[in-house]
Amino acid sequence: MRDKRTPLVVGLDPRWDLLPFPFHQNRSNPTPRAIAEAIAEFSREVIDVIAPLVPAVKPQWAFFEQFGAAGSVALENVITYARQRGLLVIADAKRGDIGSTAEAYAEAFFRLAGSVPLSDALTVNPYLGADSWQPFVAAARERGTGIFLLVKTSNPGGADIQDLKTGDGRVFEIVADQVESAAAQTKGACGYGIVGAVVGATYPRQLAELRARMPSAWILVPGFGAQGGTAQDAAGAFDSQGLGAIINSSRAILFAHRDNKFAAVASANWQSAVEAACRDAIEQLRSETTAGKLV
Amino acid sequence: MRDKRTPLVVGLDPRWDLLPFPFHQNRSNPTPRAIAEAIAEFSREVIDVIAPLVPAVKPQWAFFEQFGAAGSVALENVITYARQRGLLVIADAKRGDIGSTAEAYAEAFFRLAGSVPLSDALTVNPYLGADSWQPFVAAARERGTGIFLLVKTSNPGGADIQDLKTGDGRVFEIVADQVESAAAQTKGACGYGIVGAVVGATYPRQLAELRARMPSAWILVPGFGAQGGTAQDAAGAFDSQGLGAIINSSRAILFAHRDNKFAAVASANWQSAVEAACRDAIEQLRSETTAGKLV
Repeated sequence: MRDKRTPLVVGLDPRWDLLPFPFHQNRSNPTPRAIAEAIAEFSREVIDVIAPLVPAVKPQWAFFEQFGAAGSVALENVITYARQRGLLVIADAKRGDIGSTAEAYAEAFFRLAGSVPLSDALTVNPYLGADSWQPFVAAARERGTGIFLLVKTSNPGGADIQDLKTGDGRVFEIVADQVESAAAQTKGACGYGIVGAVVGATYPRQLAELRARMPSAWILVPGFGAQGGTAQDAAGAFDSQGLGAIINSSRAILFAHRDNKFAAVASANWQSAVEAACRDAIEQLRSETTAGKLV
Repeated sequence: MRDKRTPLVVGLDPRWDLLPFPFHQNRSNPTPRAIAEAIAEFSREVIDVIAPLVPAVKPQWAFFEQFGAAGSVALENVITYARQRGLLVIADAKRGDIGSTAEAYAEAFFRLAGSVPLSDALTVNPYLGADSWQPFVAAARERGTGIFLLVKTSNPGGADIQDLKTGDGRVFEIVADQVESAAAQTKGACGYGIVGAVVGATYPRQLAELRARMPSAWILVPGFGAQGGTAQDAAGAFDSQGLGAIINSSRAILFAHRDNKFAAVASANWQSAVEAACRDAIEQLRSETTAGKLV
């Protein structure tokens, strides 16, 4: 974030039906394998555009996993490419399981690919309790990676379980306290630990409250851009130094060629629209949040 | 279950370090691909033994996913083989995400492989709320499949979130009520719907309470066997006809060759130990639960 002077990460949620025209050309009735290869090609081209601008990408596992083994091949290819271009990789896979199964998932995401872990961080679901995510923390410590526990998600239904009131606060507040405890125990020189939280940009007030409640935890903020969250909405996630928050935008950048706002640049080529949307998001975060202080 | 006269399903959690000796022979310092191929071979041999005895297998995604693309290839191979042998496939992958991502995961598990869906059912995590699992239900309706929502898991830490008391009962009871509602709306001729629940065998009292609370929902019961749950513990999950519960055993069957109880048969070959352990579990369920009434 300091190198690139922005907390923006680009979510890689490649959807075949939304890919720019050149990818559909000469691909009528594509096989799943052909689609998987197309979304990998698209992702690599997006990475070429954004690598100089942002610190990380956040591939969304589902969009690759839906193509089975061909999707896994495509995903590993994209991640390797992102790493070669100097980007960190946040695996958005929302895994969660118990005992030896959690260990196997930790291995799936933090195994060494060459000399570096496949991913730098993984999103993890806390419903199965602390003994389900501790194996991920143990693996993360060993590999120099981290996890983000889902605390308060950006979808309306997130309230169903997360907002339930208990004697010790709402469910998401209890998870937040567990995150803070695990983050405080693993704090590095930057003042933050290796266990962070996912909190949607669609709940600005709760974002600020959770920032205060989890002073040692990075907050990964989805819901910025296409899901309706603004830079102002995300502002509460940052500390006074412009650290503490990682803001994700996926569709608003990937599919900027479909956005009227970038129609003029998109007429040259779709990559120009991706770059313009990425710069636009960076500028919004610089002017509306403490991320402007990043040096 | 009626065809095979048992509610037992065999969990496929293949662990390289626990595989029988013949798999380790001639494989020193194996590559991840070689291990993935070995666990697929082991899984197929297990399937050969158990296919005449049980209705379904429950592959545990993590144990394959840890080998990346090679693991995905191995998993698809095992699933295809299980289907050819007439087994149903319950994908134990505990997925959960929002909107179009949930749709992509539903596609990952229920996509057509040939003329049948890749999996017959999928385990889903409810922390993200009803709008996160409804896309799975929609896909399941269309493909003739089903889902099992995590309600009360078998690990000690499951209590951290699931047992929290709210004004409307404990968190897991609220999830159970959502399961029942969705199950009742999709009830088939057997009296059960396409949305079921995962409830651990390690909580016998809650299992019986949840059976009563979710009369329209199949209960998938892990924790039987190696995790310490007995057939008696699982008994409360069944209805009076011997239906309503699916009992999973993984390690106690897969790695029966390591169990003193089956040492004598294992000395012939490891497959005999798998068969003996499988028949033993079936017999326990027949004598200790209403599953004995299955015809």
